[in-house]
Amino acid sequence: MDVVRAVYEIETALPLEKTVATIAGEQSTGTFVAVRGETERLTALHAAAVESIVDLPPSGRPPLPGSSGDWADARRARVTIAFPLHNFGASLPNLLAAVAGNLFDLREVGALRLVDLDLPPAFAAAYPGPAFGVLGTRKLVDRGTGPLIGTIIKPSIGLSAAQLAALVAEIAEAGIDFIKDDELQGSAPYLPLAERVRAVMSVLKPYADRTGRMPMYAFNITDDISRLGANHDLVAEAGGSCVMVCVNTVGLAGVQYLRERSELPIHGHRAMFGAFSRWPQLGIGFGAFQKLARLAGVDHLHTNGIANKFYESDDEVLASIEAVRRPFLGGYHILPVLSSGQSAGLAHATYAATGTDDLLVLAGGGVHGHPGGSAAGVRSMQEAWAAAVEGESLESRAAKVPELAAAIEKFGQR
Amino acid sequence: MDVVRAVYEIETALPLEKTVATIAGEQSTGTFVAVRGETERLTALHAAAVESIVDLPPSGRPPLPGSSGDWADARRARVTIAFPLHNFGASLPNLLAAVAGNLFDLREVGALRLVDLDLPPAFAAAYPGPAFGVLGTRKLVDRGTGPLIGTIIKPSIGLSAAQLAALVAEIAEAGIDFIKDDELQGSAPYLPLAERVRAVMSVLKPYADRTGRMPMYAFNITDDISRLGANHDLVAEAGGSCVMVCVNTVGLAGVQYLRERSELPIHGHRAMFGAFSRWPQLGIGFGAFQKLARLAGVDHLHTNGIANKFYESDDEVLASIEAVRRPFLGGYHILPVLSSGQSAGLAHATYAATGTDDLLVLAGGGVHGHPGGSAAGVRSMQEAWAAAVEGESLESRAAKVPELAAAIEKFGQR
Repeated sequence: MDVVRAVYEIETALPLEKTVATIAGEQSTGTFVAVRGETERLTALHAAAVESIVDLPPSGRPPLPGSSGDWADARRARVTIAFPLHNFGASLPNLLAAVAGNLFDLREVGALRLVDLDLPPAFAAAYPGPAFGVLGTRKLVDRGTGPLIGTIIKPSIGLSAAQLAALVAEIAEAGIDFIKDDELQGSAPYLPLAERVRAVMSVLKPYADRTGRMPMYAFNITDDISRLGANHDLVAEAGGSCVMVCVNTVGLAGVQYLRERSELPIHGHRAMFGAFSRWPQLGIGFGAFQKLARLAGVDHLHTNGIANKFYESDDEVLASIEAVRRPFLGGYHILPVLSSGQSAGLAHATYAATGTDDLLVLAGGGVHGHPGGSAAGVRSMQEAWAAAVEGESLESRAAKVPELAAAIEKFGQR
Repeated sequence: MDVVRAVYEIETALPLEKTVATIAGEQSTGTFVAVRGETERLTALHAAAVESIVDLPPSGRPPLPGSSGDWADARRARVTIAFPLHNFGASLPNLLAAVAGNLFDLREVGALRLVDLDLPPAFAAAYPGPAFGVLGTRKLVDRGTGPLIGTIIKPSIGLSAAQLAALVAEIAEAGIDFIKDDELQGSAPYLPLAERVRAVMSVLKPYADRTGRMPMYAFNITDDISRLGANHDLVAEAGGSCVMVCVNTVGLAGVQYLRERSELPIHGHRAMFGAFSRWPQLGIGFGAFQKLARLAGVDHLHTNGIANKFYESDDEVLASIEAVRRPFLGGYHILPVLSSGQSAGLAHATYAATGTDDLLVLAGGGVHGHPGGSAAGVRSMQEAWAAAVEGESLESRAAKVPELAAAIEKFGQR
């Protein structure tokens, strides 16, 4: 029988084995009392099964509100529950209802977090996943090796079409690989997507005609589902090479809907991820989330970078980068997107820690806040990463490249 | 200038006013360093503004991981931030990126929760919301006054088409108003939606022909977005009168997509809500969530009931019921769905506490776990609620109705 294995971290003040069995029951054949139809045959075919319980040290954190028992007695564990696939089939939204639905609400748990998922091949058959991934993106960007260097349009909000075009021209001339809209820049009335596409492509097309190379621009097409197709077509017809969506605000199901229609790589922004992940005793960890996003079809997924401006530690960020790079269901290769507070001085430490250049490294403030301007910011990133990959120290390269020295002085280094 | 007001509860060990300003900046025109384009004119037009900061007593809870400062110095407050509407327009997914996106990840906050939203009329123009609501549902169910009594199919998973039909026949004959699939019952391979619809309608249509009244059956059509339309049509063409989706697993955007196509009331299940709400120092509270779900177009929304099997206190449940009943943008009236561990013995306490009978009260185990069987369970619920509304005590009615007495003995009372 095909099963989905869901791995949770749980902490409970009630008997652990019984609590895990309650979760398995609640999310399959059981409810809070026995009912007549719950026969032995039915449970044999449909009940979720507890496969393993491995004790972990207590968290030292307080319990979730409304949890039962005396927290002084709490036990913490990593548990695996196997859900029969035929309970819900290879359907992302129905999978979520089973493995990440009502269970977080149970009084029996003082902590519960979905940390990993092991899916049967039926999901691979149902969801093709990334259409471009690492290689497809490299091909479109015409950068066969080395990290892809990119930036985010800043200020996020408020540039006019002319200002946007001028900024894009400046960073394109600097030879950048990738540019993206901010996650806040959807289709604002003051500069609707159609105008943004026109402004950007009016710069990038002549640049590409002249140089033979076009930076990938990820247009943020996030919007109501019914508009995603038209938004995508607007970008594709204008010659754009990438669309971006906020995975959590259009929903995983919205991403998958876009994937079915998209001719372009899908850049997946993870805004809102913190809402269900930052408290480590609740919600969904990145290890599980990233598999769902890959299944839904993103080609790029934000992982944060080291020394970022957000809450995650470098260890967590590195684990996220490693997670999205690990093959899943035999493939689903995507590019990790290192973003948030990134700048040139982090290149060497990032390269050393990740051991790969299959990265899309984005600096927003670290490019546009550069004392020499955005083009100088781009150069600082390119030179830092080239040095890192070539084995030249940051200091040595900075001594030769004033833009890099200026970036380190302004933004620091690791 | 039209604005969206977002209300947050925040706790921070850094200077409070500065932290709130950081959030407003990060979610509109700012980033972690000043950039050249961030002009005075641009910020005047596009920056989010801190409108109020009202101190609250400290939570006594530990900070979110990765937060800055010394928690002993933490201040907690309820703050209102006004976002210019023209930054994102009346678009649910883009609204979310602004008011509930990256901000949860900021190191500056040790707690951050979106608790309420005040939206300008542009959202009402863009999103019609519930097409049926309270009155439309009452009309379809042919129950002009009094609470709507319903049940959930149990066992959730594993019944054959014949078993399901037999169960539906039994509870329909008992005069139930409403029946729903479990949130776990989407379109499982062992009993696909089409077969489920056939089985259920083969019972309900003859029943309706005979009695002139058909219980509303909420078929759980949760699935990939591309299938929602066809799933809906399957139900509508078979004469069904309601579709159900898991709001969080299809996404708010998925609900809105369905709303654009639906001829039937949409029953909104909130499975997965706990993942981003149970830790009170993070995520999105029900007060904000329910407005988003109503905007997206649900006609019914789960609120839990008192004495439920989940984590929420009665006070929280009552606040949720009150919230969904409060007019929003001049309307958006929907039915609160009281579910989870409900049974006949809770009717009087629920009616007294809510002061309304505009409720959809669902008992799953409390119906199918009744010692006399499901029909007896339905009768116990009907009699308890009739007594509550008529002003007869639970004890008095139980003395006359053995099914009610048996329910109280088995499930207890408040």
